[in-house]
Amino acid sequence: MASPPIRAVIGQAGGPTAVINQSLVGVVQGCLQAQGIDQVFGALHGVQGILAGDLIDLTDEEPATLERVAVTPGAALRSVRMKPTPEQVVQVVKALESHGIRYFFYIGGNDTAETALLLLEAARERGQELQVVHVPKTVDNDLAVTDHSPGFGSAARFVALAHMGDELDNLSLLGVKVNVVMGRHAGWLTASAALARGRGDSGPHLIYLPEQDFVMDEFLSSVSDCMDHHGRCVVAVSEGIHDADGVLISQGTERDSHGNVQLSGGGVGELLVAKLRGALGSKIRARADTFGYLQRSFPGSVSEVDAQEARQVGLAAVEFAMGDGKPSGSVVIRREKGIEYKVRYDLAPLEGLAKKTQVMPKRFMSGPHDVSPKFLEWLRPLVGDLPRTGSLGHYPIPPA
Amino acid sequence: MASPPIRAVIGQAGGPTAVINQSLVGVVQGCLQAQGIDQVFGALHGVQGILAGDLIDLTDEEPATLERVAVTPGAALRSVRMKPTPEQVVQVVKALESHGIRYFFYIGGNDTAETALLLLEAARERGQELQVVHVPKTVDNDLAVTDHSPGFGSAARFVALAHMGDELDNLSLLGVKVNVVMGRHAGWLTASAALARGRGDSGPHLIYLPEQDFVMDEFLSSVSDCMDHHGRCVVAVSEGIHDADGVLISQGTERDSHGNVQLSGGGVGELLVAKLRGALGSKIRARADTFGYLQRSFPGSVSEVDAQEARQVGLAAVEFAMGDGKPSGSVVIRREKGIEYKVRYDLAPLEGLAKKTQVMPKRFMSGPHDVSPKFLEWLRPLVGDLPRTGSLGHYPIPPA
Repeated sequence: MASPPIRAVIGQAGGPTAVINQSLVGVVQGCLQAQGIDQVFGALHGVQGILAGDLIDLTDEEPATLERVAVTPGAALRSVRMKPTPEQVVQVVKALESHGIRYFFYIGGNDTAETALLLLEAARERGQELQVVHVPKTVDNDLAVTDHSPGFGSAARFVALAHMGDELDNLSLLGVKVNVVMGRHAGWLTASAALARGRGDSGPHLIYLPEQDFVMDEFLSSVSDCMDHHGRCVVAVSEGIHDADGVLISQGTERDSHGNVQLSGGGVGELLVAKLRGALGSKIRARADTFGYLQRSFPGSVSEVDAQEARQVGLAAVEFAMGDGKPSGSVVIRREKGIEYKVRYDLAPLEGLAKKTQVMPKRFMSGPHDVSPKFLEWLRPLVGDLPRTGSLGHYPIPPA
Repeated sequence: MASPPIRAVIGQAGGPTAVINQSLVGVVQGCLQAQGIDQVFGALHGVQGILAGDLIDLTDEEPATLERVAVTPGAALRSVRMKPTPEQVVQVVKALESHGIRYFFYIGGNDTAETALLLLEAARERGQELQVVHVPKTVDNDLAVTDHSPGFGSAARFVALAHMGDELDNLSLLGVKVNVVMGRHAGWLTASAALARGRGDSGPHLIYLPEQDFVMDEFLSSVSDCMDHHGRCVVAVSEGIHDADGVLISQGTERDSHGNVQLSGGGVGELLVAKLRGALGSKIRARADTFGYLQRSFPGSVSEVDAQEARQVGLAAVEFAMGDGKPSGSVVIRREKGIEYKVRYDLAPLEGLAKKTQVMPKRFMSGPHDVSPKFLEWLRPLVGDLPRTGSLGHYPIPPA
């Protein structure tokens, strides 16, 4: 009798990104090339699909189809925000066993790493042969251990491009513009707005991150100063800015099953605009935009480096899984020292990432409302070259 | 004694677009080539700059600078929202006369056409030699007479791309997503979301335009039906949707000097989400995004056709102005009949565009919440090819 086929399964979880399908395709390609994996399945909506029996076969997908999927935003296997209960964890690993699945690749953020760890522990407890490899993705860039996360570079590119355009819009019509950027606990994405700065006086002029307590009076007087200097002020704020007591400036009400607060859309921006009108006068031209889901899904702002790395972490996940000692873990990106941007991939213990949040280090911030040159140096290669803009010379005409 | 130099001046007004500087550069290039114009000036912040004496000389700008300016979003001459009073109108035309300016090119929307008309009438009344040519721009596409307006194609491309990405995001995590799109009185931009549709079940599933009264009960039951069918629902709504009495679903409070209400950012979307939670249950995953100023300024979604036409209307404005009879007017785009997309430029009387709003015609709409195939046929050439996305085949795995 032939031995039963050895199978791998892939799932995607958490908020999708513009390049999460690059990682999916990387894992599929890795599995198809690997000696020792016969079939590769996809779980629809992550662990929820494994519980519900919603598995599809990816073994025979055409390479051309996979390449088209890779450049498509959103989670092609569909996603889920679900922390399985202890009972569900056991159900999932049993379901994997019954399908002859020895490898589980789970693409997601720190909550996904936690779920991966729970599954691994349950399998070990049962003496079940299962390797679990977490493949990192997040637009927030808040994963621990890794230098940065796939998905972040493209979202940061969107935020930088958006601020480039918005800065020029503000220069046209003046006034205060507040842009609310994703990032609940970590300010990486908001901080990326700084890449939009060109000329000496160009915005964003103020950048507020959740790594620092938000002081309303400091904000109002900083905007007022900026208006005095430039007649305008572009502000990038994280959706997660909070006061010294940790209370969100705009408090949401919903929570998901991981206990995460779901922030509402227009809240922070509208609130800050109202405060500005109160402080600077109701006649001030003040507007707010909340970039929302476009940051993680817009098809027109993918960073090439980000797309490449997202593919590579998928391929690396399979390589690591097939390696000696049958390891489980999380694929992380290590940045090589040196002037030229270069990375290598590594496998870190799931415990190092699960439920952990990597915030911006102090050296990447500057004062109460700015980032440091070191941060921009770190960021630039992840985002890629931005379009070059131009401005007219200033040759004033004397009075007639 | 040599005769005094003949001069032209250019201004930009209203909300900027991603390609408004193409038109600026078109006018500058046209003036530099024209026999009969010696110098070309720019008015900073439109008529406000003429009143304040804020003029700059554009005659000696390097061609390379102009080309970089052309691909830069925002108004390079800075913009203004200002309807001059009768006294200011006279001041403006006198200032033009004192600078030896015979040609005034004003890039903007229907309010700008109105200002252009006021200036023209004042000059005629004074017996002053002045030609005023309005160069069309608007992301809203609400200008009368012209087939479409430069600026619209790129904004429509942004809205279509945003919905492509957001649709795939929604497919990943399901639930209701409401996207609020610019367009106060005209639904052209909101309607462009329909280009994002790919597969049979893909969104946006519902599209609400200000051309039709918004009926809350119809909206709630249509979303509910859509959720029953697809487990999800992507909705594109115009910021300007209103009830049968004409009252905006989200009423703003500020008005500019043209009497336009300034709509607030998150209002309509958050309100619809609250209504949906009330009707479909608070557990429903419902989110709203308001695209805001990104629609008119994002540097990563310019339509090539739009950019070309924006340049051409600038060049055409000068050509018309130098023609026989020294005409004033507004440059409009006429679409040629035929399968292949082709346009020609024409000069229409300012009276035909000033203060007029071109809404979507009935033949471009379909039922209470959709657009017609005729509209998409009209729209596609203005937006250009959209990226091709891919999806996995569905090869379900039988239960183990």
